[in-house]
Amino acid sequence: MKIETVDFFYLSMPEVLDIGDGSQDALLVRIRAAGLEGWGECEASPLTSIASYVCPMSHSACKPLKYSIEGKGINSAEDIYRITADVRENSLDLLQADHTLSGIDIALWDLLGKKLEQPVYKLLGYQQAYPKLPYASQLFGNTPEETYEKATSTAAKGFRAVKFGWGPFGKQNLEQDIAHLHAAREGTDKDAYLMIDAGTAWTENNSEAARRLPALKAINAYWLEEPFVNGALEAYKMLSETAPQVALAGGEGCNNFVQAQAMINHAGLHFIQIDAGRIGGITTAKKVADLARSKSVTYVNHTFTSHLALSASLQPYAGIENDLISEYPVELKMLAQEIGKEKIIPDSSGYIHVPEKPGLGITVDTAPLQKYLVDVEIKVNGKQIYYTPQL
Amino acid sequence: MKIETVDFFYLSMPEVLDIGDGSQDALLVRIRAAGLEGWGECEASPLTSIASYVCPMSHSACKPLKYSIEGKGINSAEDIYRITADVRENSLDLLQADHTLSGIDIALWDLLGKKLEQPVYKLLGYQQAYPKLPYASQLFGNTPEETYEKATSTAAKGFRAVKFGWGPFGKQNLEQDIAHLHAAREGTDKDAYLMIDAGTAWTENNSEAARRLPALKAINAYWLEEPFVNGALEAYKMLSETAPQVALAGGEGCNNFVQAQAMINHAGLHFIQIDAGRIGGITTAKKVADLARSKSVTYVNHTFTSHLALSASLQPYAGIENDLISEYPVELKMLAQEIGKEKIIPDSSGYIHVPEKPGLGITVDTAPLQKYLVDVEIKVNGKQIYYTPQL
Repeated sequence: MKIETVDFFYLSMPEVLDIGDGSQDALLVRIRAAGLEGWGECEASPLTSIASYVCPMSHSACKPLKYSIEGKGINSAEDIYRITADVRENSLDLLQADHTLSGIDIALWDLLGKKLEQPVYKLLGYQQAYPKLPYASQLFGNTPEETYEKATSTAAKGFRAVKFGWGPFGKQNLEQDIAHLHAAREGTDKDAYLMIDAGTAWTENNSEAARRLPALKAINAYWLEEPFVNGALEAYKMLSETAPQVALAGGEGCNNFVQAQAMINHAGLHFIQIDAGRIGGITTAKKVADLARSKSVTYVNHTFTSHLALSASLQPYAGIENDLISEYPVELKMLAQEIGKEKIIPDSSGYIHVPEKPGLGITVDTAPLQKYLVDVEIKVNGKQIYYTPQL
Repeated sequence: MKIETVDFFYLSMPEVLDIGDGSQDALLVRIRAAGLEGWGECEASPLTSIASYVCPMSHSACKPLKYSIEGKGINSAEDIYRITADVRENSLDLLQADHTLSGIDIALWDLLGKKLEQPVYKLLGYQQAYPKLPYASQLFGNTPEETYEKATSTAAKGFRAVKFGWGPFGKQNLEQDIAHLHAAREGTDKDAYLMIDAGTAWTENNSEAARRLPALKAINAYWLEEPFVNGALEAYKMLSETAPQVALAGGEGCNNFVQAQAMINHAGLHFIQIDAGRIGGITTAKKVADLARSKSVTYVNHTFTSHLALSASLQPYAGIENDLISEYPVELKMLAQEIGKEKIIPDSSGYIHVPEKPGLGITVDTAPLQKYLVDVEIKVNGKQIYYTPQL
């Protein structure tokens, strides 16, 4: 079959708050071919990603994404690999391209799965999908008391793993950060996995991060995530060797394979966290999962939006039994909740399961999404080059 | 003074060809404050960069660039450093932000230099600017014969350093590539520096690159540039240790400091090439130049567009006497030629000099640019959020 249409839908909550909650807007991608449709989701800045799809060519290595995609044949995994390679070559100097490719690649896998009547993880070569232990991923409270309350409420829901991140953490003084850390543990079962996400708070500042290690050790943090900006190999490596040692997690900011490779090989990480909506989609994420396995680094999905994105994020490591932990957002805005008809819900033992239906196994229900649709129109020299299509 | 307006101008040749010539379009940035104006230039995909400046916020770490810039005070270098840090934090998840920031940062330095009546390199802390030896940077011919002709014609113009890149090189078989390499040397003075730019042709494929090493050695190539995609640390490192050894150059694709740091520390490079129009501007480029000096890696500017961009690219290492070589595009399209009133022209000894006038020392002449102006209009939910301002 051939790609017939590639449509982007910018969805947004009526009000977007200045908080670290990535579920407040979304860019859905719908690809149609031969009576089927595949859906994907790009992470972050819908308008910018749309522009990268339709922009005029700047030169041979800075073409719009549509150049590599429209009208291309999709009959096998190899066709998707080829499209990914084409985008990387034709849009080499178009920085936003990797984020835009991500949603497209995800939609292509969903489409191919529907055509071949297989879940995506099987198309990736896995025989079966293993259950994952979801961690309830949420923002720190504004105060330690709020963090404590969020922790007890999450524990009451039966989660055996919890992560707190962003919010005030890392932006205040040491004592306040320590108070949040202890509040998080006190509200959480003492045997539960507890992860802490610093949201790149210390940029490349090793000593500020190191000052938090004793408290992280004291609360038995399972990992410290993103103390530094993505790719700050030296800072990560040094912190990984600083006592008391706390396992480090990072990588969500990687937007291609070699960046993840560098983090795996040079940053001293225990956990590599990959967002399929940023790294170039499921294709590139799977390549990272293979590398991580060969290097004994644990792969973890990164996701903070819809269950469509959640399903996409799980496919690349669905078949790796030992990589048990998975991110599971629990504070989704209504928009993100309404994107997928089916939900990936923890079973009575607390595990989640990768959908077994063809493709990503999540049906996008367009009716409730109409109210979130943001109309975008782009004109270049008076000619309309983009207008929001019919959802 | 306070930033009053930040205006973007998308300029384009009437026809953009599918060749590796980045001078076919441009995104100029004009920043006005207190009766002065500073000019900068972003590399690649004008429409996408404009979108990243005006897009609605997605969440706290995905804000449009304007959030960190409009109305801010500019009185010292520290103000520019602060704005750079703000953009990196507020637009962390907006991939295109680094390219957009680049042009803004360059315009801010130009503006500040005009206010303080100093050339930018002095504001960066250099006492003087040393002459640079420009290499004539051009595309390979379509055939070895064309490459030979281009080489002889460039030698006749008195250039003592020449680079050939892109075009068919690396996309053909080994024998054809070797023919191009010998043609380039035969047309060039045997004592001239001759550099070869593979334009990421082999992605991460080490063996394909290694097969070219004997020919590169035979023609005494001063460096082999970008055999692989930016950040492919393992492939670069391995090639740097493969016999016969040829010095490697790379880094133009870096869009922040830590990516350049990784290339310097882990890729086995002799030359780190930084494009001020991509890495986040002069601020970040200078930080890389400082690091490169401390690691005995030679800094080289990367630029392929106007003399405004050329001046910006030279400032970060203007005061490093030993880093002599500089990229100097010689096949500029008329658009790029007409951007700057003043030109940076080699002197009778073949050296170029960083302008000594305040700011970047290049006056942008708007009259001849009118004919290249591309009108852009962006509407979100019916509201116009961008329209090309008056040039």
